[in-house]
Amino acid sequence: MKKSIITVSREFGSGGRIIGKMVAEKLGIAYYDKQIIARVAEKTGFAEDFIEKNGEYSPSKSIFAYAVVSRDRAGSSMNDYIYSVQRKIILELAEKEACVIVGRCADDILNDHNKALHVFIYGSPEEKIKKIMDTHKISEKEALKLMKATDKKRSINYNYYTDKQWGRTQNYDVCLNSSVLGYEKCADIIVNLVK
Amino acid sequence: MKKSIITVSREFGSGGRIIGKMVAEKLGIAYYDKQIIARVAEKTGFAEDFIEKNGEYSPSKSIFAYAVVSRDRAGSSMNDYIYSVQRKIILELAEKEACVIVGRCADDILNDHNKALHVFIYGSPEEKIKKIMDTHKISEKEALKLMKATDKKRSINYNYYTDKQWGRTQNYDVCLNSSVLGYEKCADIIVNLVK
Repeated sequence: MKKSIITVSREFGSGGRIIGKMVAEKLGIAYYDKQIIARVAEKTGFAEDFIEKNGEYSPSKSIFAYAVVSRDRAGSSMNDYIYSVQRKIILELAEKEACVIVGRCADDILNDHNKALHVFIYGSPEEKIKKIMDTHKISEKEALKLMKATDKKRSINYNYYTDKQWGRTQNYDVCLNSSVLGYEKCADIIVNLVK
Repeated sequence: MKKSIITVSREFGSGGRIIGKMVAEKLGIAYYDKQIIARVAEKTGFAEDFIEKNGEYSPSKSIFAYAVVSRDRAGSSMNDYIYSVQRKIILELAEKEACVIVGRCADDILNDHNKALHVFIYGSPEEKIKKIMDTHKISEKEALKLMKATDKKRSINYNYYTDKQWGRTQNYDVCLNSSVLGYEKCADIIVNLVK
């Protein structure tokens, strides 16, 4: 079965977003990342900033704090609601057209989609920190802190909603070390896998 | 830097050995797997069977049992001795010629080798069990048991000698799901990365 949907999960600073864009451009297909936030905002009426914070980086501190603080009496929360809308949008996108979807547990949401290829992009801490320093114009210390915090939030969110472990090979079809292979080569491998 | 040494780490039943052989054939380079055992046997005087058991699948039960039972007074053990000889052979092979080396912590031993590409091959439990049943002519139950036991031994051995976690993406340059991609495609990706 030819694959036409590519989900890209990525460590912060590994260039997963850039690689995802490269793949979409090389294949001439749609690219969804922040665009999903806009769609969730449209459907829920929440501000995009709020969605961004709660759609991929929730629960914010720990499952425990999350359960205690933000769940309502029915056991559901704002985060759960945003997640469910986001999930529906991702399923609709995958039915509608060939596309690259970055982050947002898309690999799990489209786990059974027979046209989806699931990619994980990771890298060496040193290289990722360099990239983060460059992109965000921050010190090495700040970059390390931001990297750890972002990946921690992503993994807590992913593990909570998928019951899997973020970054574990078994969740993906191919895992690429962008620090060793380079962005271009990562993109080429993915393109060759779906062409 | 062009890569000419390929280390292949693999889950039991994922076809890593077959993929490694395919890569060596496609590139016309040497392939080392059981051959390393023969060399260790030659250097140590131990029987090949004994090396096989102790070279990649030790410590046999747990680090604790291993430390208590098989270490001599100097804190070293038969397993440590075999590991050190195996390590030296792998370093020599990598200096001598382009080659594919399967298993035996080669990814860690050649971690700093600038011509080495480190690959991890994994697969879905269902597909791996089917392969193991076919290859070993055993029942599904036996295949599951053998798969779990073998991967457990490999991971204990790897974690002990490398201080890393077996199968964790960060140890490798590329991780491929052979159940989804197929053996041929896995081999092609690797060949394209070193060509």
